[in-house]
Amino acid sequence: MEISARNILKGKVESVEKGQVMASIKINVTDPTTITAVITKESAEKLNIKEGDDLAAIIKSTEVIVGKE
Amino acid sequence: MEISARNILKGKVESVEKGQVMASIKINVTDPTTITAVITKESAEKLNIKEGDDLAAIIKSTEVIVGKE
Amino acid sequence: MEISARNILKGKVESVEKGQVMASIKINVTDPTTITAVITKESAEKLNIKEGDDLAAIIKSTEVIVGKE
Amino acid sequence: MEISARNILKGKVESVEKGQVMASIKINVTDPTTITAVITKESAEKLNIKEGDDLAAIIKSTEVIVGKE
Amino acid sequence: MEISARNILKGKVESVEKGQVMASIKINVTDPTTITAVITKESAEKLNIKEGDDLAAIIKSTEVIVGKE
Amino acid sequence: MEISARNILKGKVESVEKGQVMASIKINVTDPTTITAVITKESAEKLNIKEGDDLAAIIKSTEVIVGKE
Repeated sequence: MEISARNILKGKVESVEKGQVMASIKINVTDPTTITAVITKESAEKLNIKEGDDLAAIIKSTEVIVGKE
Repeated sequence: MEISARNILKGKVESVEKGQVMASIKINVTDPTTITAVITKESAEKLNIKEGDDLAAIIKSTEVIVGKE
Repeated sequence: MEISARNILKGKVESVEKGQVMASIKINVTDPTTITAVITKESAEKLNIKEGDDLAAIIKSTEVIVGKE
Repeated sequence: MEISARNILKGKVESVEKGQVMASIKINVTDPTTITAVITKESAEKLNIKEGDDLAAIIKSTEVIVGKE
Repeated sequence: MEISARNILKGKVESVEKGQVMASIKINVTDPTTITAVITKESAEKLNIKEGDDLAAIIKSTEVIVGKE
Repeated sequence: MEISARNILKGKVESVEKGQVMASIKINVTDPTTITAVITKESAEKLNIKEGDDLAAIIKSTEVIVGKE
């Protein structure tokens, strides 16, 4: 399936931390850049996400804020 | 001001395309990765965003979806 | 690619309306329910979305608000 | 109150799972389709959401990503 | 209908600006604070939003970023 | 850094409640209005957010839904 989200950053899972409902996944996309994704614990378990996995961070362009120094 | 958003990717503006209400900004964060941000035209003009500007793409971690091959 | 978004509703494109930056896509997911998705015009064109196409509406669970009568 | 969100899917609560801050609500909108909504535990309690309740899933159209096979 | 979104700010519409797909609505919530909402032009027209209208800005708590000086 | 998000509401932290992954922050922006922000616990700790802190609630305009009575 091809998706409309314009931003797809591929990387490797550095860490997975699970709470009761949510889970925080850290993805190293290009050293030293790390993307943090917070998804449901249910998704993290259905996708069986674990350290070292290849994963893509997918971000819809309307969700991006820009900052200028 | 330090912000809570965990994902801040710095890059250079490749292009700015303005509609009547929205504007699409392409930011080269690490060659060849380009982030597309859709913001209001008003913001693009208030920040005076133009090609070649240094810009950060800011993404809250709850907005990131993950994909696994 | 399997994605973490928990809500994937399949349907058929009813209409595509393009602006300069954004595009509005109406997807009939189960008659008479129609989902409206606003994506970038660029995405609508890259995916070549047109009336009658089979399309999935993908929604991250943190984006859903609930209402109770 | 009439709201601007274009996507309002009515259904029945299948399950409610509460963490310390967030809660995951599963809403059966049209058998067999289930929508997962993650809201604050505080909201789930203020709205007194429980299994069997009639509930609407409300989704702003800019939050919808589309996927094409 | 009572909704789960924790942040509901009431105010008066200061301006409505319509593009082809999206519309920008400025709502004066407490002088001098103005909230900008970008919704679909379709919604702005269905709700018949015009200057001087009483309107609520509704924001889900997961969409709020915090900043600290 | 100046950011593109159009809505920046300044206030004082009323309460911080932490779960395992997420944290809920209540910010009194103009008495009696309180904004609830749900961010990662990690961010709440990195910004060292505590009761009485001056904090800004930052909201992108595409995240705002409007409601009309």
